Amino acid sequence: VDEGRSIIVVSNRGPVTYHGGHGEPRTARRGGGGLVTALASLVTRHNVTWIASAMTEEDRAVAAEYGPEGLREQTKDGASYRLRLVAHDRAAYDWYYNVVANPMLWFLQHYLWDLVRRPTHERGGLEHAWREGYVPVNAGFAEAVVEELKRDPEAIVFFHDYHLYLAPRLVRNAVPSASLMHFVHIPWVAPDYWHVLPVEIRHAIHDGLLANDVVSFHTERWRRNFLRAAEDITGGPRADTTIAWAGGRTFVSAHPISVDTAEFDELRSHPGVLEHERQIVATRPEFLVLRVDRTDPSKNVVRGFVAFELMLELHPELHGRATMLALLDPSRQDIPEYAEYLGAIQREARRVNDHFQQPGWIPIDLQIDDDFHKSVAAYKQYDALLVNAIFDGLNLVAKEAPLVNERDGVLILSENAGAWDELGRWSLEINPFDVHAQADAIYRALVMAPDERRCRLEGLRAQVRERDQEAWIRAQLADLDGAVAARSDRPPAA
Amino acid sequence: VDEGRSIIVVSNRGPVTYHGGHGEPRTARRGGGGLVTALASLVTRHNVTWIASAMTEEDRAVAAEYGPEGLREQTKDGASYRLRLVAHDRAAYDWYYNVVANPMLWFLQHYLWDLVRRPTHERGGLEHAWREGYVPVNAGFAEAVVEELKRDPEAIVFFHDYHLYLAPRLVRNAVPSASLMHFVHIPWVAPDYWHVLPVEIRHAIHDGLLANDVVSFHTERWRRNFLRAAEDITGGPRADTTIAWAGGRTFVSAHPISVDTAEFDELRSHPGVLEHERQIVATRPEFLVLRVDRTDPSKNVVRGFVAFELMLELHPELHGRATMLALLDPSRQDIPEYAEYLGAIQREARRVNDHFQQPGWIPIDLQIDDDFHKSVAAYKQYDALLVNAIFDGLNLVAKEAPLVNERDGVLILSENAGAWDELGRWSLEINPFDVHAQADAIYRALVMAPDERRCRLEGLRAQVRERDQEAWIRAQLADLDGAVAARSDRPPAA
Repeated sequence: VDEGRSIIVVSNRGPVTYHGGHGEPRTARRGGGGLVTALASLVTRHNVTWIASAMTEEDRAVAAEYGPEGLREQTKDGASYRLRLVAHDRAAYDWYYNVVANPMLWFLQHYLWDLVRRPTHERGGLEHAWREGYVPVNAGFAEAVVEELKRDPEAIVFFHDYHLYLAPRLVRNAVPSASLMHFVHIPWVAPDYWHVLPVEIRHAIHDGLLANDVVSFHTERWRRNFLRAAEDITGGPRADTTIAWAGGRTFVSAHPISVDTAEFDELRSHPGVLEHERQIVATRPEFLVLRVDRTDPSKNVVRGFVAFELMLELHPELHGRATMLALLDPSRQDIPEYAEYLGAIQREARRVNDHFQQPGWIPIDLQIDDDFHKSVAAYKQYDALLVNAIFDGLNLVAKEAPLVNERDGVLILSENAGAWDELGRWSLEINPFDVHAQADAIYRALVMAPDERRCRLEGLRAQVRERDQEAWIRAQLADLDGAVAARSDRPPAA
Repeated sequence: VDEGRSIIVVSNRGPVTYHGGHGEPRTARRGGGGLVTALASLVTRHNVTWIASAMTEEDRAVAAEYGPEGLREQTKDGASYRLRLVAHDRAAYDWYYNVVANPMLWFLQHYLWDLVRRPTHERGGLEHAWREGYVPVNAGFAEAVVEELKRDPEAIVFFHDYHLYLAPRLVRNAVPSASLMHFVHIPWVAPDYWHVLPVEIRHAIHDGLLANDVVSFHTERWRRNFLRAAEDITGGPRADTTIAWAGGRTFVSAHPISVDTAEFDELRSHPGVLEHERQIVATRPEFLVLRVDRTDPSKNVVRGFVAFELMLELHPELHGRATMLALLDPSRQDIPEYAEYLGAIQREARRVNDHFQQPGWIPIDLQIDDDFHKSVAAYKQYDALLVNAIFDGLNLVAKEAPLVNERDGVLILSENAGAWDELGRWSLEINPFDVHAQADAIYRALVMAPDERRCRLEGLRAQVRERDQEAWIRAQLADLDGAVAARSDRPPAA
């Protein structure tokens, strides 16, 4: 059955946040973002209860007001779902979010730690944040899930991402028959790199995920790393697809998430997009090299600027004719590593501009804000799109931008982005550490023959349209059904 | 046959360097170091030709004087071997050694790059150093090996370490029937981390090693990483022990290298050691915490100092009673990352001492020099030995020091040192990133009950004495014989 199933979605950030209070009326702000977009069709076709953290003060008021009953909400397409917000202890949430999840797990799962110097786990800070933050917040989520399963024992539970590694084991212990699946949206790293964490923590993470019937990743590469890490860290058996652990079985799969192509078909002529596009067209030089990212160290913005500088050095004929437009959404500025990286981005842009800038031409046009309509306008106008992430679970920009581009723009894609598996053949592949190769790729993109440009862009579009988000949801549910069926057929070896 | 085989040992650094010239008489300086010590019994029992780079000016004079014929040399135990020095082009050697081998491969193979910032492969520097340095120096070694094999086609070729990844393929192409084995003395990292290198280079490294009949590592952990990396990077088949690739087969094994126990039995009463020991005894406090390392970022000296500081903070009763003696051999000071790290070490020791130092007590006694007799004297005197490497192929200090220790000293050992596989059960295990855990382990070592201390030390000694270097050599040769026999039995699938 492809319709009408009961599904409990569990993610740290929900699809809506509430604002207002203090005498102001309550307003709901519907978020965008990969997860919410990807799950839109899930909400449309199935009976969804969404459990998420209360993020704002008004979220907490909603959580207190509606309690375990939750409230009905709608996606921006009008599909209805039930929302249950969990109000965690504020200190616990701070440890969970600002110490364990970001930066510790995020940095670890993108190979970003400068291991000679950091982390140091000094004064037991990590263990404390784990015990008093990550564990109780996960327990709070698990408790809500268990209550929901009492209400509807047949419901499927669908966990998301690196905030919730412990919840599946807690739910499994309370409800052994539950149907649990987990999608990890970021890379899984090799077993050695998990050694950045003390043994108890890295073991608990793998054990927690292995309480699911299905664990899924964007690409075969992260899937394979998970199988290997589970083997090494739990001491469990080597497995190709299904890991037997702690009396259960976990099917491990890879399905890249997709984008809502219809949304982008509409967005291209949205008035807000058109207004930004007019501004870009009025000021753009002959060649526009675009990047759209959060200011996350994993995105490799600084090396991208150095590569653009090197390209200008090697090709003076492009001075005044090529600009790199960097639309950067400031990210996680509560966390020192992120604040520092934003400083490094600004310093590097300044340095490159001081090197080449002349009246009428700013080589790097750095714009730090969060304006999706402007991003879509820039998607339409680029001649080359640089996605040079150090490591990236997938990278949605690489899928979104080609859908609306109108200049046969060329995608330059990191071999360490999950999207490379699907899109690599139509992209210019680059190694994210190789600034020289990135400079060459930018130049090659700008001077590429029209036929080749068009052919590559059409290939990208066809690929993105073919593997859409409905296909992703169907594949996830099929994995779960298969895993649950296998469980009842063959009792696991104890 | 366990004796009298013809073996061509190939390593960048040979067992002897020559000095003198400019009117001074030529003198031979015999090096110590893990490789030379480990191969001493090989030289004693077999007919060894050793091919190494000419390192000094006088080495170059020797290479020119003796040419391909080489010269007879002796180990310090009086065993005779033939030495053939290869004088590489100076610029090529500089690129090979100071750009590719150190820091690029060394940092990569210990997970030491700060990937957010470095490397950048800017201006094609790495590719250039690879093409004009690493490739021709490896070709120079391969040429010498091929000449030796013409002279003695039955000789076994035994390559060593990360300087020589390309030579085996070049030799295999010239002499398809050659018997080739390679020992890698440093960690092998997971496939993702090899992506720090451009695809052509990481592929060439794995392809080069897979031209050997046998590739060996210190531990199962590095062995397993090599199998996985070979699978992912070459696109070859998944393998448990033997990789089929390019028409050949490579057996992959793990045998930890050992130390010359007899040498340490003698050293403990060597006059130079005794003289240093008297000085240590005369000035030592009640508790001596020792570390002996090169000033290599992989050794994690700075975190060790922070851990000692934290221990002092938590246990004021030990102020004035415990000192950390850090005997550090300055390492690779031609390379900026190493020079910077030495600065960081000095700054951190100064900071900790400024925090606690009082008349009569220097908390961290930092001694930067290279004096093996002093190290052995300190080995005899420690109460706790800290080996907290970030990652380490094996770590010989952890094997050497317990052999001569006279105070039932406790080994505190990183879980990421290759030696942990063998010695972990008698050590206090620490996570190298966890400063708090290291502080706890230092304290626990110092207050441990005498019985437990003795039991652990005896366990360490028994393990080191049992798996000695002759066992290592025998295991290596048995692997090779097995692999070559399998080759002639079953022609590889093309």
